[in-house]
Amino acid sequence: MTDVLEQLTAVLEARKQAAKADASYVASLHAKGLDTILKKVGEECAETLLAAKDVQHGGDKNALVYETADLWFHTLVMLSHVDLSGQDVLNELARRFDLSGLDEKASRSS
Amino acid sequence: MTDVLEQLTAVLEARKQAAKADASYVASLHAKGLDTILKKVGEECAETLLAAKDVQHGGDKNALVYETADLWFHTLVMLSHVDLSGQDVLNELARRFDLSGLDEKASRSS
Amino acid sequence: MTDVLEQLTAVLEARKQAAKADASYVASLHAKGLDTILKKVGEECAETLLAAKDVQHGGDKNALVYETADLWFHTLVMLSHVDLSGQDVLNELARRFDLSGLDEKASRSS
Amino acid sequence: MTDVLEQLTAVLEARKQAAKADASYVASLHAKGLDTILKKVGEECAETLLAAKDVQHGGDKNALVYETADLWFHTLVMLSHVDLSGQDVLNELARRFDLSGLDEKASRSS
Repeated sequence: MTDVLEQLTAVLEARKQAAKADASYVASLHAKGLDTILKKVGEECAETLLAAKDVQHGGDKNALVYETADLWFHTLVMLSHVDLSGQDVLNELARRFDLSGLDEKASRSS
Repeated sequence: MTDVLEQLTAVLEARKQAAKADASYVASLHAKGLDTILKKVGEECAETLLAAKDVQHGGDKNALVYETADLWFHTLVMLSHVDLSGQDVLNELARRFDLSGLDEKASRSS
Repeated sequence: MTDVLEQLTAVLEARKQAAKADASYVASLHAKGLDTILKKVGEECAETLLAAKDVQHGGDKNALVYETADLWFHTLVMLSHVDLSGQDVLNELARRFDLSGLDEKASRSS
Repeated sequence: MTDVLEQLTAVLEARKQAAKADASYVASLHAKGLDTILKKVGEECAETLLAAKDVQHGGDKNALVYETADLWFHTLVMLSHVDLSGQDVLNELARRFDLSGLDEKASRSS
């Protein structure tokens, strides 16, 4: 499933560094600051809820995937803006669900 | 970073199957239905925004990690409830950011 | 306090009728449809939360008044779009808080 | 339409004063603090969006009135908590929509 988040984090970090020179969307979010990023998180959450209700009423599942991707993406930008990452969030989820077995196995094999 | 989401998806799917017999939190969310899950997504999004503002004003970053984990977790339950998964969302993010290189390489080496 | 909501409702209703011909912001919201209006409600709610956190940390109260006005305004547009009004919401609040005395008195005197 | 908000503001203010002694819901919100109030605002906003989508798909309009009342109510508690009121918000709406005629008339007659 997996290295997508890792790669995306690297892309986002590179664009954060370039925030002053780069015209990309991510750079413009960082240049505008945390409040702008958080407004987008709130907006994308609302759009996710609306798309999920459409699925409930027989609508398109792809739209829900798209809106959830928007939501996760903007939370990753938010994390990056305050020098956190998706890895920190996944570590917290792994801790809660006691999913440490694989990481332990991976570190043993390396 | 990676197999956490995959493992978590498996755990969530198992608990969805057990929704009638299981007393777990995830099972109870599925039993209550999509609207209850979506209310939690909205609530966790609000808590994420509040925690991010606290970080902006010098507060604890761990609280933001915790609230974002809650938000992602409840979006995963939402996806599972309508027979989608975090993988669908990551595929969409990979497509947007042209992160397909690694997956291609992985499939070639197997 | 009072007739502001009543007058505003009349203004909003007039602009809803004009949605096809009128270039106003409200008319454009109605023309775009309920989902666009709901996205704005979600966005303005997020902005209200952010402004309230700023007040908590010593920021400007006027910004919170402004954002709450945006939120109430877009909920009024939402109500109008589905042929409800702010009066329906106030009636519900009056019912809950047993504030019917004044209305009763008013109807007796008329 | 009108004095409902004024009366409700008075009720809310009284319960805020009683926050330590009173077991009422409003008092408990004030005692728990602004973050708890804001989480409720976010949650009620999400419920409003869900109810509006149900109306879009043929559902019950009363549920939307009920959820919007919850949303407005919790924003009034929020305003009260930081020593603002619904009147401040209505003044801002009146200013934007140039609805000052009535207030002027009222002040002339008093």
